[in-house]
Amino acid sequence: MRTQVAIIGAGPSGLLLGHLLRQAGIDCVVLERQNGPYVLSRIRAGVLEQVTVQLMERLGLDARMKAEGLPHDGFNLADGERLIRIDIKALTGKEVMVYGQTELTRDLMEATGERGLEVVYEASDVALFDIESDAPYVTYTKDGVEHRVDARFIVGCDGFHGPSRKAIPESVGRSFERVYPFGWLGILADVPPCNHELIYANHERGFALASMRSETRSRYYVDVPLTEKIEDWSDERVWDELAVRLGPEAAANITRGPSLEKSIAPLRSFVFEPMRHGSLMLCGDSAHIVPPTGAKGLNLAASDVHYAAEALLAFFKSNDADAIAGYSEKALARVWKSERFSWTATKLMHRFPEDGPFERRMQQAELDYIASSEAAQRSIAENYVGLPV
Amino acid sequence: MRTQVAIIGAGPSGLLLGHLLRQAGIDCVVLERQNGPYVLSRIRAGVLEQVTVQLMERLGLDARMKAEGLPHDGFNLADGERLIRIDIKALTGKEVMVYGQTELTRDLMEATGERGLEVVYEASDVALFDIESDAPYVTYTKDGVEHRVDARFIVGCDGFHGPSRKAIPESVGRSFERVYPFGWLGILADVPPCNHELIYANHERGFALASMRSETRSRYYVDVPLTEKIEDWSDERVWDELAVRLGPEAAANITRGPSLEKSIAPLRSFVFEPMRHGSLMLCGDSAHIVPPTGAKGLNLAASDVHYAAEALLAFFKSNDADAIAGYSEKALARVWKSERFSWTATKLMHRFPEDGPFERRMQQAELDYIASSEAAQRSIAENYVGLPV
Repeated sequence: MRTQVAIIGAGPSGLLLGHLLRQAGIDCVVLERQNGPYVLSRIRAGVLEQVTVQLMERLGLDARMKAEGLPHDGFNLADGERLIRIDIKALTGKEVMVYGQTELTRDLMEATGERGLEVVYEASDVALFDIESDAPYVTYTKDGVEHRVDARFIVGCDGFHGPSRKAIPESVGRSFERVYPFGWLGILADVPPCNHELIYANHERGFALASMRSETRSRYYVDVPLTEKIEDWSDERVWDELAVRLGPEAAANITRGPSLEKSIAPLRSFVFEPMRHGSLMLCGDSAHIVPPTGAKGLNLAASDVHYAAEALLAFFKSNDADAIAGYSEKALARVWKSERFSWTATKLMHRFPEDGPFERRMQQAELDYIASSEAAQRSIAENYVGLPV
Repeated sequence: MRTQVAIIGAGPSGLLLGHLLRQAGIDCVVLERQNGPYVLSRIRAGVLEQVTVQLMERLGLDARMKAEGLPHDGFNLADGERLIRIDIKALTGKEVMVYGQTELTRDLMEATGERGLEVVYEASDVALFDIESDAPYVTYTKDGVEHRVDARFIVGCDGFHGPSRKAIPESVGRSFERVYPFGWLGILADVPPCNHELIYANHERGFALASMRSETRSRYYVDVPLTEKIEDWSDERVWDELAVRLGPEAAANITRGPSLEKSIAPLRSFVFEPMRHGSLMLCGDSAHIVPPTGAKGLNLAASDVHYAAEALLAFFKSNDADAIAGYSEKALARVWKSERFSWTATKLMHRFPEDGPFERRMQQAELDYIASSEAAQRSIAENYVGLPV
């Protein structure tokens, strides 16, 4: 098969990019290792910045998001009994949209047929070739048969563990990484949220996050040492822990219910440079990971896709090779700023085992300062709604 | 001798407090271990916040400061070749005053005679007694004779190494400390400054600061490992290092000259709680130390003095014991915020040996973000000019 752009991975990045290219009349094919239901079963982020909302609007795939998503104009930092509200609407004029990554992916997936976006599911053993040339190609196996896709460009939207990043020679790339000494234990349940806005809590027992996917589906997290086993966390134990860490006001409003999903995810900061090599571009988790504090992961993937689509359109419509050459620098400038925000938010709201009493007081002083300073709140708010693309 | 307030230490905190009490007609005496010229020879900070300027105004001792001090409405962060200007006047409506701590101390010292502020120099072996009672007293030796001062309150303005903090029982107090893995090598020279505003630089070879005491006297610093010996740093070597670290634009304007003073000072964050115990109150370095990045040390001492004078006036004029009881909490709220700012500024502008490539990129991303965000600049500026007292 021959196409203009071969996209590896049919998560939200790959599907967003595929739709944007198809909308512009550019040929592409999306290769996905899993089947569709598996992709949809991945429980991930749920807070969308304007960059992500605007891409859905541009594709005309925003109807369900607008109908079912919850616009939020603030969120909260909890510190024991105190609740510091960050009024993002008043501070920035913008809001965020609470809409599950699963729902967004479903909207993108369901539109593939009518939009003529070809997605090959269960494409295994994907491998990339000749990425340093103008004629790269991808091979994969489906139903026991090997296939080859020739393209002008390959875009890796295949996540942290996918083959795309690994196709870039070690001599060319550089990785930056920070692993955190805890994970987030998440629980999803069909119960109303305890608060109409998100609450990030730094309690003496550790971090907690109260969030939601809808008015009837809640998503909660507590941080736990990486040595913890999920079997040791009954639903009841998770609810008990949340009730303590989120503070008395939120605790009084928690509705308990059986978990639909419960798992422990490690936290990581990771950036790979460059985000383009030859005819291969990387988008989203294939190039970078942020810890989930601040909800930047999906939105950063969306801004990568925005820049990648812009570059590919410039190339195919205006024969502008410079746009491709400039992709990595453009995307990385925003990536590093989001990495910074996610890192500082993680440091502010978690208890690190290596921190002593002085560092703990620095957290408290930072929260006191944030509570008292509009400039500090505005800085947090502008990062939370998303820095300019 | 009997007095209302015995003040230990005749540095800027002790003299400021003494003058404020005398202005209100409260009896006090200041005990200083050194002689006057020694006190004046201590080369320290040189950037005054409004809180400090306003105390001098209130005392009517601001004439020379107003005539000779340099009002600054901005400062700069350097990052290799880039200079990020923080326009503190535009961002906060306030400015800072460049005026050496030595000059401020001299103004306070020279006014003691006419204002009737008694300062006992060369008072050695100062010891505090009965601080938990309403009748504490201080003993000291002068010219081989032991003296005793009975007072209603004792205020410790005697720095990190003085006897006041140590008089508080260990069971009552708690110390928070962070020691940094480098020191500041400072040089003072009678040469015009390389820039009309301060420049804080984070260069791959380390930190540098270009500052000044006047239009003809410059104060520069570079950070060095604590293992460095001052003998190994000729003036020429210091100037060479500054020229590299401050970046090409500043380097072109450096005027070299022989050092009037040259030394290495360690960096420390330290807070002691509480700042009052019984009839003893602590002000300034006796209770807390900040690393010098951001120039908070002297100004924090001044805000302590402001709160202490307020409490003592309320006690002696209105018989308000609650004001004394509330001193520690009031002072510490501002102390911790200044500790936070000094700590974050130090972390942003220095290369820490324990930091890896990820942490270095976080510094760069923070500087990139600051360069692009008014909210971030405003947050820095409001801390630099001093948070509200």
